[in-house]
Amino acid sequence: METIKKIKYIREEMQANKIAACIIPSADPHLSEYPAAHWKLREYLSGFTGSNGTLVITAECACLWTDSRYYLQAEKELNTELFTIQREGETETPTIVEWLKKNLQVGETIGIDGSLFAASTLLNWINEFKRNGIHLQTNFQTALIQNLPPLPNKKAFLLDSSYCGESASSKINRICNANRCDYTLLTALDEVAWTFNIRGNDIDYNPMVIAYACIGKEKSTLFITDSKLDKSIRESLNNNNISILPYEEIGNFIRFLNKNQYTISVDAEKTNYALYSLINEQLRRDEKSIVALFKAQKNETEINNLRKALQMDGVALCRALSKIEEKITKKETLTEYEVGEIIHEERAQFPEFHCDSFAPIVGFGANGAIVHYSAKKEEATSITSDNLLLIDSGGNYLCGTTDITRTFCFGGATAQQKRDYTLVLKGHIALARQAFPTGTCGEQLDILARQFLWNDNLNYGHGTGHGIGHFLCVHEGPQSIRPQAKGVALLSGMLLSDEPGLYRTNEYGIRIENMVCVTPAISKNKGEFLTFETLTLFPYETKLIDFSLLTPSEVEWINNYHQHVFDELSPWIEGEKSYEWLKNSTKRVLY
Amino acid sequence: METIKKIKYIREEMQANKIAACIIPSADPHLSEYPAAHWKLREYLSGFTGSNGTLVITAECACLWTDSRYYLQAEKELNTELFTIQREGETETPTIVEWLKKNLQVGETIGIDGSLFAASTLLNWINEFKRNGIHLQTNFQTALIQNLPPLPNKKAFLLDSSYCGESASSKINRICNANRCDYTLLTALDEVAWTFNIRGNDIDYNPMVIAYACIGKEKSTLFITDSKLDKSIRESLNNNNISILPYEEIGNFIRFLNKNQYTISVDAEKTNYALYSLINEQLRRDEKSIVALFKAQKNETEINNLRKALQMDGVALCRALSKIEEKITKKETLTEYEVGEIIHEERAQFPEFHCDSFAPIVGFGANGAIVHYSAKKEEATSITSDNLLLIDSGGNYLCGTTDITRTFCFGGATAQQKRDYTLVLKGHIALARQAFPTGTCGEQLDILARQFLWNDNLNYGHGTGHGIGHFLCVHEGPQSIRPQAKGVALLSGMLLSDEPGLYRTNEYGIRIENMVCVTPAISKNKGEFLTFETLTLFPYETKLIDFSLLTPSEVEWINNYHQHVFDELSPWIEGEKSYEWLKNSTKRVLY
Repeated sequence: METIKKIKYIREEMQANKIAACIIPSADPHLSEYPAAHWKLREYLSGFTGSNGTLVITAECACLWTDSRYYLQAEKELNTELFTIQREGETETPTIVEWLKKNLQVGETIGIDGSLFAASTLLNWINEFKRNGIHLQTNFQTALIQNLPPLPNKKAFLLDSSYCGESASSKINRICNANRCDYTLLTALDEVAWTFNIRGNDIDYNPMVIAYACIGKEKSTLFITDSKLDKSIRESLNNNNISILPYEEIGNFIRFLNKNQYTISVDAEKTNYALYSLINEQLRRDEKSIVALFKAQKNETEINNLRKALQMDGVALCRALSKIEEKITKKETLTEYEVGEIIHEERAQFPEFHCDSFAPIVGFGANGAIVHYSAKKEEATSITSDNLLLIDSGGNYLCGTTDITRTFCFGGATAQQKRDYTLVLKGHIALARQAFPTGTCGEQLDILARQFLWNDNLNYGHGTGHGIGHFLCVHEGPQSIRPQAKGVALLSGMLLSDEPGLYRTNEYGIRIENMVCVTPAISKNKGEFLTFETLTLFPYETKLIDFSLLTPSEVEWINNYHQHVFDELSPWIEGEKSYEWLKNSTKRVLY
Repeated sequence: METIKKIKYIREEMQANKIAACIIPSADPHLSEYPAAHWKLREYLSGFTGSNGTLVITAECACLWTDSRYYLQAEKELNTELFTIQREGETETPTIVEWLKKNLQVGETIGIDGSLFAASTLLNWINEFKRNGIHLQTNFQTALIQNLPPLPNKKAFLLDSSYCGESASSKINRICNANRCDYTLLTALDEVAWTFNIRGNDIDYNPMVIAYACIGKEKSTLFITDSKLDKSIRESLNNNNISILPYEEIGNFIRFLNKNQYTISVDAEKTNYALYSLINEQLRRDEKSIVALFKAQKNETEINNLRKALQMDGVALCRALSKIEEKITKKETLTEYEVGEIIHEERAQFPEFHCDSFAPIVGFGANGAIVHYSAKKEEATSITSDNLLLIDSGGNYLCGTTDITRTFCFGGATAQQKRDYTLVLKGHIALARQAFPTGTCGEQLDILARQFLWNDNLNYGHGTGHGIGHFLCVHEGPQSIRPQAKGVALLSGMLLSDEPGLYRTNEYGIRIENMVCVTPAISKNKGEFLTFETLTLFPYETKLIDFSLLTPSEVEWINNYHQHVFDELSPWIEGEKSYEWLKNSTKRVLY
């Protein structure tokens, strides 16, 4: 069906239902970062394929809200006679709520599918629109969803305890002891995956299965399409006192719990409005997800496994980079896209590799300054030794999820490039080696990574650190290191990225990213102070360091780190070309 | 009247009014930091003179809540057969609300004087107690208040525009343009003082008059005891279109505004509940005080005046310290109390000196580790060259309010003392010279002052910086630099202290405090970055610096600062003994 016909069809549905406007987000009922194709309604309706976009349709207008990453792509992909692009982040752009308040009349109705919005968002919107005399109807669904692909139906698998270190029944026990409710509703796919030690292939980059769960002291239930589970998984789950019900039964199950007066713990920011509002208000206990907090604190098995994953990752990158450097030095044609492929192939050599943990960001020169750049095969730029190359990539291994960024220079660097790289590196190191008292939140540490840039009146527009899952999502909460106050204390075992950057529009981009783990500081007052352990194993680009800007202790830190990287990676690649590359890249520098 | 009789009297009043518990705080209706004696009911009833204490009386119990500064003092001053001390900050100590919920029965009533509590606090308490079936009656006042001294009745005076740089009518205009209400209610004494450029002597350390104000486009009104105002002040106020009404008329005036359907802007955190609840809810506009924000951003005249105040302050301290050092070197007896007196006398030499801006904190050795130590004349410790001396003091000059802390060593220092001092100094410098983008909040910068201590697993228990008024309160909001998120962006012209410290219980205390002013950073992107200018003029204690812990740029910063201090102060003291002291204290050090 043509786009114009789809929009016409929806407008007829709206008219028939007395809906003045409908909002179609990029979301699934699990509020995932990457929804499966089954839920890509906004993409199907508009033709716009970017990851962030919300469509608002009225009888006269069709607007798409998206952010600066996608301004150009939206112009290319959208029929701009039909759609108006609303550029988020530009001062004159209204929010969706503002726009609707302005364009709708008192007494009119907005239609949305409540299963595609967080309950916390819709509860606010309902009040906000009510104050303006506008009604929000939360069960409006277009029949066009039938044209989307079916739910993914890949097989699920269980993660061995040698990888995850804790049984599902132990996790369930901990959840029940923490939440003094009869049941805890889990709708985020990574929370279901973590709790049951179950994984799958339903979502790009995230090894998860599409499922809901309800955790209870006496019995827990997994809501999942039957065909995903082999007999052995089914038995294993049953042995952990876990029942299995069809995916679609979650709603009926909540009704059953209501009827039997069971209390239910639920996180309004992580649960879609449709499910949330099914829960009887008297029985509902609003709580921040305890599973997110448990999941964020990696156990010893997970951390030790991650060390292995990061060794594989470091080896793969050494092999890839020595190849890439050779091609560039020999002036062979090599595009950004091909760099991503080479790295993927090296990672994929390891039997425990499962998939990339996100689409690699390989940006040469000016492309490196586009923070979420993704080179398409046909349009990718060829790499030379004339400018910087930024590579941000990661893998999902059975033993852990990785995420690393390095910025490379294959020729000579300008003084500004070296100063910029060194200021970013100084911030990266300052954060990596800071100790802090228990109770400290990520937002308190953020400035450590920015201080040197700020003193040059420079900055970067993204957060400094995000949480990372264990063979799960490369982005997870609740921990983070950003300027915005979240009030989440960093706890021992939490994994985070440490990734300051600097982006010179139309020139180049710099970002340096390691994974760090929160760990007790060696202290007289045991347990009162925490610090980070850097887990990523890969050298920095010493060609880009202006050593005159470093203190002796920063130089020592870099030398110690490089020695550690060499010690951990070199035994795997002895005799290979990459061994020389690693040796050269980690050689001791003098102050 | 004996304490036991006072409590008996109140219990009889409570019984007659069916009040099961009453709460008596340390507060006045203006929610001042230092209430006048007229409002020191808690002190009158209990005998406890500490600045922080809340009394709760029931038929069986009388409890006093206070913090660790006052545990000992409370034990000394209170009749402990009659009163139980509730030690705030100890984990087993209940909050007042928790204690009352536990000790009262459903259906019982708590009596308080609503004029002594912030509206925001009581609105929460009312709901909290209601949920527990307890009623909060907000108009309970003991007749014993008649035994307290009358309202202070000192003369008011106007601050010349050469000191404050903006007329009352200009300020009133700005307030009216910012708050789109008919009237803005001001109850905080420093907000009234700032708006009308009026000062007085009603409060210790804070040069303010007791008054309310109501700011309106057409007319503003000052509520003040008539006898405080001379004819000239009255005329000047009238010329600025300001009416004068008796202090007690504020309530009737609000009733009048209600009756005439005028909207009123009010800050629930700064306004007492009794006044707040007089305002008709439909006409009430809850807003953060815009006057606090305006007052915090000093204009050029105020900043230039403050420079003069800090010159006087620096000169006074040089003179005082050269005397103090001489006495200690000659082993003359000198107590902490006498040190405070010497400094006060030197400040008082300047005609523009008005009063101390707070009671000086002079702590020798272990006393320096007590953060809010105040030496009493009879009990003050004698100072020797064997340990560190911490001096935190400040003056109120017509040209500005000062606040400075230095830590001195008159003999040899231990390696630990030098390391501690140097770590504190490094943090103090890191904060002082940091640039930051507009929109940055104080809490984001706090770690800069703590980072070096934290890396030694050390910390201090107070904030890093507080706002400072202009010839007003030495502590003012909304700006601050502390770990707790406040969400207040630092703005150009805001004055703050930069005062990290370290306290070794039973050994010594270290604190280093300068006043800094937020100012635009020299930047290509004008206005996008801010930084601090250090305004305080007084040398650090170089005998306490371990130079091996400093970077070359930190040493350079200290040398430049010392040169600047010498240049600014030395012309005033040529030929005096203190000149040599200053010259010696600011001499260049080498890395």
